[in-house]
Amino acid sequence: MESIADELFKEFRENSIAEFFRKNRQMLGYAGKVRSLTTIVHEYVTNSLDATEEAQILPEIRVEVKEIGEEKYSVLVRDNGPGIPKNIVGRALASILSGTKFHRYMQQRGQQGIGASGCTLFAQITTGKPIHVRSSTGKESYECDISIDIKSNKPVVSNMRDVSLEFRGLEVYGEFADVKYENSEHGVFEYIKRTALANPHASISLLDPTGKEYTFLRSVNAMPKKPKVVKPHPLGLEPGDLVEFAHRSESRRISSFLIDTFSRVSDAKINELKQLVSFDLSKSPKELTWQEAEELIKAFKSMKWVAPEFDSVSPIGEKYLGLAMKNIINPEYISVVERKPRVFRGGIPFVVEAAIAYGGGAGRKNDEGEEAGGNIIRFANKVPLLFDSSTCAITYAVKSIDWKRYGIKDFEQEPVSVLVNVSSVFVPYSGVGKQAIAQEEAIIDEIKLAVMDAARNIQRYISNVRSRNLAESKYKTIMRYITQLSGDLSELTGNKQEVLEEKLKKLVDTKYKKLFETDEQSNNTQDIEQGKSTQDIEQEEGEDEDKGAS
Amino acid sequence: MESIADELFKEFRENSIAEFFRKNRQMLGYAGKVRSLTTIVHEYVTNSLDATEEAQILPEIRVEVKEIGEEKYSVLVRDNGPGIPKNIVGRALASILSGTKFHRYMQQRGQQGIGASGCTLFAQITTGKPIHVRSSTGKESYECDISIDIKSNKPVVSNMRDVSLEFRGLEVYGEFADVKYENSEHGVFEYIKRTALANPHASISLLDPTGKEYTFLRSVNAMPKKPKVVKPHPLGLEPGDLVEFAHRSESRRISSFLIDTFSRVSDAKINELKQLVSFDLSKSPKELTWQEAEELIKAFKSMKWVAPEFDSVSPIGEKYLGLAMKNIINPEYISVVERKPRVFRGGIPFVVEAAIAYGGGAGRKNDEGEEAGGNIIRFANKVPLLFDSSTCAITYAVKSIDWKRYGIKDFEQEPVSVLVNVSSVFVPYSGVGKQAIAQEEAIIDEIKLAVMDAARNIQRYISNVRSRNLAESKYKTIMRYITQLSGDLSELTGNKQEVLEEKLKKLVDTKYKKLFETDEQSNNTQDIEQGKSTQDIEQEEGEDEDKGAS
Repeated sequence: MESIADELFKEFRENSIAEFFRKNRQMLGYAGKVRSLTTIVHEYVTNSLDATEEAQILPEIRVEVKEIGEEKYSVLVRDNGPGIPKNIVGRALASILSGTKFHRYMQQRGQQGIGASGCTLFAQITTGKPIHVRSSTGKESYECDISIDIKSNKPVVSNMRDVSLEFRGLEVYGEFADVKYENSEHGVFEYIKRTALANPHASISLLDPTGKEYTFLRSVNAMPKKPKVVKPHPLGLEPGDLVEFAHRSESRRISSFLIDTFSRVSDAKINELKQLVSFDLSKSPKELTWQEAEELIKAFKSMKWVAPEFDSVSPIGEKYLGLAMKNIINPEYISVVERKPRVFRGGIPFVVEAAIAYGGGAGRKNDEGEEAGGNIIRFANKVPLLFDSSTCAITYAVKSIDWKRYGIKDFEQEPVSVLVNVSSVFVPYSGVGKQAIAQEEAIIDEIKLAVMDAARNIQRYISNVRSRNLAESKYKTIMRYITQLSGDLSELTGNKQEVLEEKLKKLVDTKYKKLFETDEQSNNTQDIEQGKSTQDIEQEEGEDEDKGAS
Repeated sequence: MESIADELFKEFRENSIAEFFRKNRQMLGYAGKVRSLTTIVHEYVTNSLDATEEAQILPEIRVEVKEIGEEKYSVLVRDNGPGIPKNIVGRALASILSGTKFHRYMQQRGQQGIGASGCTLFAQITTGKPIHVRSSTGKESYECDISIDIKSNKPVVSNMRDVSLEFRGLEVYGEFADVKYENSEHGVFEYIKRTALANPHASISLLDPTGKEYTFLRSVNAMPKKPKVVKPHPLGLEPGDLVEFAHRSESRRISSFLIDTFSRVSDAKINELKQLVSFDLSKSPKELTWQEAEELIKAFKSMKWVAPEFDSVSPIGEKYLGLAMKNIINPEYISVVERKPRVFRGGIPFVVEAAIAYGGGAGRKNDEGEEAGGNIIRFANKVPLLFDSSTCAITYAVKSIDWKRYGIKDFEQEPVSVLVNVSSVFVPYSGVGKQAIAQEEAIIDEIKLAVMDAARNIQRYISNVRSRNLAESKYKTIMRYITQLSGDLSELTGNKQEVLEEKLKKLVDTKYKKLFETDEQSNNTQDIEQGKSTQDIEQEEGEDEDKGAS
């Protein structure tokens, strides 16, 4: 006899992750034609930046987008990175959740082994075409076609042949339908522009579908400091992590396992721990139970620790960020802040950088290219985030600031751009498409502090501009009467009118004009290029902080 | 010699989906303590509703949440469904992407085979405990512990034993840390309340951590129409789907494959198709190429088709929705609209229902329980969506409506609740956590039409309330002078003041009072219970549509 349950569960099956994403491609960022095209470019460019950084090569990246049919485009991305070995290339580009980066405790743009395989999948389900790959590693040099067997999530490599290539690195070419190239805030051009902004060591060129060439040359000729693979900090652990690490460990004792596996654990710390837990730290880590792991974590939390190693985190850097903003946004005024590293969830290090640009090219533009108010430019690990803005911790933090306190009456109306970059070994993205940072409290707080810090300089600048404008208008008013006044005085005193007018002008100049002329110089963004941060300059002026508040 | 690439790719590995979600649990909805607890209850209750619906059993669902430590809770969910066969239970509850629903073309709440296994994973990584399951299928009756082997995404079933159980169905018990019970808009109680609202055929009871019992009894004693498994419509297909279906098909010819696999394809349609494509429809479907599939889809698009079968879609129903809103929100006025089925992406059927409640219990309340303005209550396939509101198509559509046109001056300030339920075989969720509907244009448009339709009645109601208020205030003003007037008249005419006063009152009553008293009756929400939709009543009154606009 069969139960209803037996009947209902007859169709029970296991599905591959590739099949899941084939049905739910919007979760990978393939929702909307413009977004889908940007997602493709994003995945390939991100991989190129990671690969060149790991191999310590100054990146040269070439992107070509061509229209090949109705809502059909080809995308080519070529880099000068290390290339991919022949025996790996299939799995690297056509097997979801495969990769080298998943288990490393180190800051990288990609991490999940989803991006490039997602592109292969998307090409396949929209045009039925494999991607074409050419790569030279210095040892091997080949080309091939790669697609993905959706049922098994395994790569299918075909037409593999050795060729001699004119470049060293990796070139990926794919054809995609259901996509669209658009020159909007969410388009490929904006994505590449912002990538260049956050990666001043990279040269990136773009050929767009109209045949136009854009080149973003590197503004810095040095590689960013290579982020180190570090050991996790005891305060960033959960019982599950600890048990897993312990059961995989080759150490003979829990004590040596802790010292070897985590940062900041010393013999002295082990002695301290011994007093705090109920079990023997000299037993094998393979025997560590969940309850004991919980005890250890409780003990960790009651102890004093040196902060985690921050070498794992690689921000853009105050100087480069200011420089890049000047090049790309060209505002009247820039204020840049790099905060000290912090930790979230107890022990995961992260760094927030914030920059605010005001006036000039800053702010959002509407479709007619007119000023339309404040905008927020978001980055995570130097990767631009163009989508899902409303769920992002950065948006939330920036919008929760009381901008009036900083002389900005309505953020939505003024020519202001707020840029935030969050760097971490582990950025908690809110979705697989990695377009928004989850709203972790510690991260939100730190973003707010960074932006408010930068906003204080903006407030001083705006306040200066306002008093300058006031002085300027007084100056102009007085100047208007000087000719009349000098005539009257000349009659009264018998002095020459021209001489009197000249003297009066000098007097007024001394009193009013210097007020705004001086300010103009000190607020010049040139200072950034001389390696002097705008912050220092503003502090030297010692302006009243509350002046600009209204 | 090793290339740099060989060196860099040494660590290349494949990862399990369980491991991916262990690292990225926020993507499954486990972000924030309150949300995490609601997610657990959501996953289990959703499965219970699906299982009972499939087995055509009126659901009785029991939820118990107990505090067992600091930010540690146990959750028990028991249903009277079909249960799960012993040989399936491990995979059903502890193997991500396993399930029966993935390949069915039929409306169900769950679909991905992620939810319950995600709970098992979350229990495991926060408390290290397996979940405990008791189930009786009528044939088997057992209990066991289940956990998940994260490395392989395979279930680990232990302590399996046959027991006699006092119930038929499934009971799942788990212990979770890093969670919190809270009586907020995002909490378990609100989730269950809204589930009851959209599933009036279900009885759901909740024991909360303070020991309080809540019971939502079913208000309808009939099962909702069982959604049918239907064949896909030719207009909802992409080339990839078509090729996949074709290569899996057992049919001998493409023509019979098309007739057997898709809905609305007849012999007549095949004859029409023959004229439109360049290849022979009598060849084997296994030989169908991508280019031919593209040709077929292009041809489909140029042909006239009968709309898809809508039996696959099961909305709440206008009558039940009105009833439930009255029970649970108890507003002054309700307007309910169920739209006709539509399709998106060419051929995927969906139905939108909208209801607007005004006054009384409608609208958002602030933390002090005071009225705080309009709120949006979102459902997909009768499942409440409590999170990620800002990215959801429903939120977007409701906010883009010009509410002033409907007599609502500021949506954020008035006592109004807008409820929307989107039903479909395939709801395009924006994330794995399924808390928001992706912003597909056709869906947004249809939501707007439904809400605007319902809003027209609200506008009439508000306009009536306003003219009623006007009449009432005139009436009161006149009444105030009647005593004085009747005295004066009595002196003039010699008639008795009492008689005159009575007569005058009657006169005024006839002229003014009936205006607002009549309205009060016709706007009474009682009408819904009598099976008469408020829409009809409002149309009978034939009020001027523009009156309420301001």
